[in-house]
Amino acid sequence: MKTIGIIGLGVMGASFAARLSQQGISVIGFDKSEDTIQTALKKGIIQKGTTHPKDYLSLCDQIVICLYPTQIETWIRTHQSYLSKNTLLMEISGVKTGILAPLQEMLRSDLEIISIHPMCGRESRGIEHSDPAIFDQANYIVIPTEKNSQSAIDQAVELGKILQVGHIATLSVEEHDRMIGFLSQLTHVIAVSLMNTHENSHLVEYTGDSFRDLTRIAEINEDLWAELFLLNKEILLDETDQFIASIKHFRDALESEDTEEMKRLFIQSTKRRKLFNR
Amino acid sequence: MKTIGIIGLGVMGASFAARLSQQGISVIGFDKSEDTIQTALKKGIIQKGTTHPKDYLSLCDQIVICLYPTQIETWIRTHQSYLSKNTLLMEISGVKTGILAPLQEMLRSDLEIISIHPMCGRESRGIEHSDPAIFDQANYIVIPTEKNSQSAIDQAVELGKILQVGHIATLSVEEHDRMIGFLSQLTHVIAVSLMNTHENSHLVEYTGDSFRDLTRIAEINEDLWAELFLLNKEILLDETDQFIASIKHFRDALESEDTEEMKRLFIQSTKRRKLFNR
Repeated sequence: MKTIGIIGLGVMGASFAARLSQQGISVIGFDKSEDTIQTALKKGIIQKGTTHPKDYLSLCDQIVICLYPTQIETWIRTHQSYLSKNTLLMEISGVKTGILAPLQEMLRSDLEIISIHPMCGRESRGIEHSDPAIFDQANYIVIPTEKNSQSAIDQAVELGKILQVGHIATLSVEEHDRMIGFLSQLTHVIAVSLMNTHENSHLVEYTGDSFRDLTRIAEINEDLWAELFLLNKEILLDETDQFIASIKHFRDALESEDTEEMKRLFIQSTKRRKLFNR
Repeated sequence: MKTIGIIGLGVMGASFAARLSQQGISVIGFDKSEDTIQTALKKGIIQKGTTHPKDYLSLCDQIVICLYPTQIETWIRTHQSYLSKNTLLMEISGVKTGILAPLQEMLRSDLEIISIHPMCGRESRGIEHSDPAIFDQANYIVIPTEKNSQSAIDQAVELGKILQVGHIATLSVEEHDRMIGFLSQLTHVIAVSLMNTHENSHLVEYTGDSFRDLTRIAEINEDLWAELFLLNKEILLDETDQFIASIKHFRDALESEDTEEMKRLFIQSTKRRKLFNR
């Protein structure tokens, strides 16, 4: 039976552990907090767990690193000596530019690391918010670099199947980060900026679903997202500038009472949005 | 038993008719289309219906006008002679500035008109998309002017209760349009402008719930919303400009890698958004 180690039992790591355990995989959990390990054992989402990684690392066939992007390098530097030959490492950061190259550079030559991105992050933090169901219908992207072997790509795809995600795709680092910059990061910039437009607590009692749907992601983990935005800075600035140009164009059509242009923009957005209906 | 006439059996009018019929009210439907009248009769959402308004208008104790804002004046001019003394008219436009004053001006002195806004509009058009459930949990606003009588206000509130809406409130025209400008119209400007930022059909397969939630309202009825935006132009321009300033501020914090300011903005948006959770 395959054994998978999960590094960091936060909301994502614990969700991985829970789904993999459901699927009959032997899961070992690694976390800095003894409380978290005990919770994971009690919930039955890991079969073994420890705050001392070296105890069990050599038992793992695969490792899924569920840490903040900037913590990965230090973790690998400190712990790679305990890993068995040919262990495959996977990392799940939400942005990929600049992530994998330095890790591949420093990794033992008998190990391999590959990037995956299960697009089902949650804003809440910690094991108590973990949920194996987040993988249902999720997009799961494998993002190989030219240094990755076919075997590693195949194993990363296989992991997506075991997790029972909704859709598995393979993208280059550039394709992935451009897609994330528009679909995920820009939408967070918009939701955050809308909530920050002005004080609005007096409007709560009049709020309908549209506003709630649009601003749900304005509840955001400030530490993680500040990191992710800086890692994808150039692309996100470009997407944000394109959006600002788009909304200014609409604003100017309204100011000049250009009804025909407003209608054209409505018809275009309607047509484009229809493609995104499930 | 009270008889309520519904003028225009589009998505809103037919939803009104359906919910009022469920509540045991006698509902008469008025529409330009004979097909629509027949459909409404077949569905049992009206008890009587006609394409010739003068036939049944005198039977109505109350009239709910469910037409586009710019069609209301012509409708009243053409049909008010058929109404019985003391009939209360209600109109449901999504914006109120400039709507009621000219109507009150031209109305027969033995009639009265009052503004209501059930905040449960749908983007789809036509009776086939009508649904009495849209009123469940909806906000329902009564927007009296100084010319409205207490009796009219009471009847408008009573209608909200009969519709079984979630929450009934009374606002001035200015309060209503400022609230709508931010919560509803600006959010539509944002969703439309995001879809129009650039071509994005290649991203459909990677799209998660955040993007879908944020852009749902980019599918929009171009005729109705162009009207509504122009009616509320000054307020909507002001709200849009405040939002553009907010997103530019975020953009500049990202460009200058001001992590502390980004985190402050994330924390502020998170705190504000928490108030809006149901």
